[in-house]
Amino acid sequence: MEPKTYAQAGVDVIKAEAFVTRLKRLSKRADHQQLWPAAGGYAAVYPVDERTAMALTTDGVGTKLLLALELKKLSTIGIDLVAMCANDLICVGARPVAFLDYYAVGKLIDEDADQIMEGIVEGCDQAGLLLVGGETAEMPDLYKDRHFDMAGFAVGLVSKEKLITGEKIKKSQKLIGVASSGIHSNGLSLASKLVGSDKSLKEELLMPTLIYTKPVNEILDKKPQAIAGISHITGGGWRNLLRLSKTVGYRLTSLLPTPEIFQKIGRDIETEEMYKTFNMGMGLAVIADGDSDLIIRTFSEHGFSAKVVGEVTDSRGELVIDGVGALGGAINLKE
Amino acid sequence: MEPKTYAQAGVDVIKAEAFVTRLKRLSKRADHQQLWPAAGGYAAVYPVDERTAMALTTDGVGTKLLLALELKKLSTIGIDLVAMCANDLICVGARPVAFLDYYAVGKLIDEDADQIMEGIVEGCDQAGLLLVGGETAEMPDLYKDRHFDMAGFAVGLVSKEKLITGEKIKKSQKLIGVASSGIHSNGLSLASKLVGSDKSLKEELLMPTLIYTKPVNEILDKKPQAIAGISHITGGGWRNLLRLSKTVGYRLTSLLPTPEIFQKIGRDIETEEMYKTFNMGMGLAVIADGDSDLIIRTFSEHGFSAKVVGEVTDSRGELVIDGVGALGGAINLKE
Repeated sequence: MEPKTYAQAGVDVIKAEAFVTRLKRLSKRADHQQLWPAAGGYAAVYPVDERTAMALTTDGVGTKLLLALELKKLSTIGIDLVAMCANDLICVGARPVAFLDYYAVGKLIDEDADQIMEGIVEGCDQAGLLLVGGETAEMPDLYKDRHFDMAGFAVGLVSKEKLITGEKIKKSQKLIGVASSGIHSNGLSLASKLVGSDKSLKEELLMPTLIYTKPVNEILDKKPQAIAGISHITGGGWRNLLRLSKTVGYRLTSLLPTPEIFQKIGRDIETEEMYKTFNMGMGLAVIADGDSDLIIRTFSEHGFSAKVVGEVTDSRGELVIDGVGALGGAINLKE
Repeated sequence: MEPKTYAQAGVDVIKAEAFVTRLKRLSKRADHQQLWPAAGGYAAVYPVDERTAMALTTDGVGTKLLLALELKKLSTIGIDLVAMCANDLICVGARPVAFLDYYAVGKLIDEDADQIMEGIVEGCDQAGLLLVGGETAEMPDLYKDRHFDMAGFAVGLVSKEKLITGEKIKKSQKLIGVASSGIHSNGLSLASKLVGSDKSLKEELLMPTLIYTKPVNEILDKKPQAIAGISHITGGGWRNLLRLSKTVGYRLTSLLPTPEIFQKIGRDIETEEMYKTFNMGMGLAVIADGDSDLIIRTFSEHGFSAKVVGEVTDSRGELVIDGVGALGGAINLKE
């Protein structure tokens, strides 16, 4: 039997969510009042003074790294690592400034390590991040052969004026979809199993995640009030949109073209499940407060394909995709 | 044959250092002029404005986590993770403010995950850090059974006046040693092999790393000019002292008591090698610019044992320990 859902692919999302809930309770002792509230919880926003805050986030690339190892192509997985962090920072309106990596490996092999770092450096260039530090650990008893894991930590800076809180999101605002390069770094456990032994499909899955920071920086510099919300479409697929505001819903009517890879891996999977797991061709979604042309034009000037894909509705927590159906209830996606 | 050095224990320090050097070359593209220079490279110091900077660092706990798994005691390994990061931040004069964790595991088992997070929360309490985020990844194809890895990311804030650059370190200043709780989180690959199957020794090795942030915060608040340098004694043992300044050396004449654990594991190892690998009872070293009494008293008030153990000399890059010998040439210890 081929796995049809994340759980069948060996990843227990419900259990992971329960853990995150317990964790939140555990860390209640800490006074999170100190943080500035920001849309979607994509990054923690810790104030430096009254006007400026640091935005902080961490992420990994999940099992995409196993695919990279299998295909013996490690030079772009570092781009994914940076992308997963940098794209989170812009969702709160922050300008990404500094990056650190944790890289743990069974046996440090020059060729592998250099390729991985090459990707991280390339990702930082694309994101406008300065690579300021990192930790390299060799742990032969934990990782076998050339296996490795990696984590990224990214820091951004955001002024109180530019902070995206989600409070400005309201009915009838346009939702702009920005194209992804493919599967990015989410749903790989399931996707890898679905493609079986097809090497060219595997190579397609390995395509690095797009980094959207530069156009977003530019829009926020020119006209911060043009953006009401930004959603990085990661684990949980399009339901990520529902993280931004509890008072609205979304209706998507005119989607970006769905890359072929999703049709190929999605043959035996319900379309709804696909949209709940993968980005389906939309790596980032931006809610425009007025000037949607400026947003689309700026993405386009930076080489990204973007268009109006739908709008905000007043149906709380509802996400309706024409031709697909309703992707129910908001879930807790982040720690 | 029992392993006598780190290399024999399966960790190739030279190779790791060569990688770090190549990495530095690779990331030269990035303009590190933006960073404020800080003593020892314990943390990257990225300015927010002219007066204030963020201090950023990342670390793991290495193979100490395998020992924790073996002993089925996961509740303190999170303290080690926080300690490794928080103790680095204070070395540049920063006040630790926020922490994020990356936790990757083969199979998410409630009991294990809760214990690990309990340690992280406890460590954050001890360090005065706010746990602001994290990432939990379940990767059954990368980690076997209950195996896991974890990385920490800590952020501090430092004013230009409090930044420790190492420039004030000069001949004849007193070196204050602050006691460790045992092996802390370094040299575990070697130590675990040396203790063999002795369970009580293994338990001693698992003792959590002390977190020195609160007394250091207090001294820096009261009298920042009292401290010329701080060295967190981690991988590389006492040679960490040589990271702080290229123009001086150190002579240690009156050591803190060496915890028994080091004698037990060090029977067949040259003493010099021991000091180059382990903290040997000194988890932190502080160079006093004048008021060494204030420093010792403050540590003591916070329950730490501290005393003058030696002084700064003008023998560049030389570290002499009476009764042990000279621990030659400075090495590149950090990425």
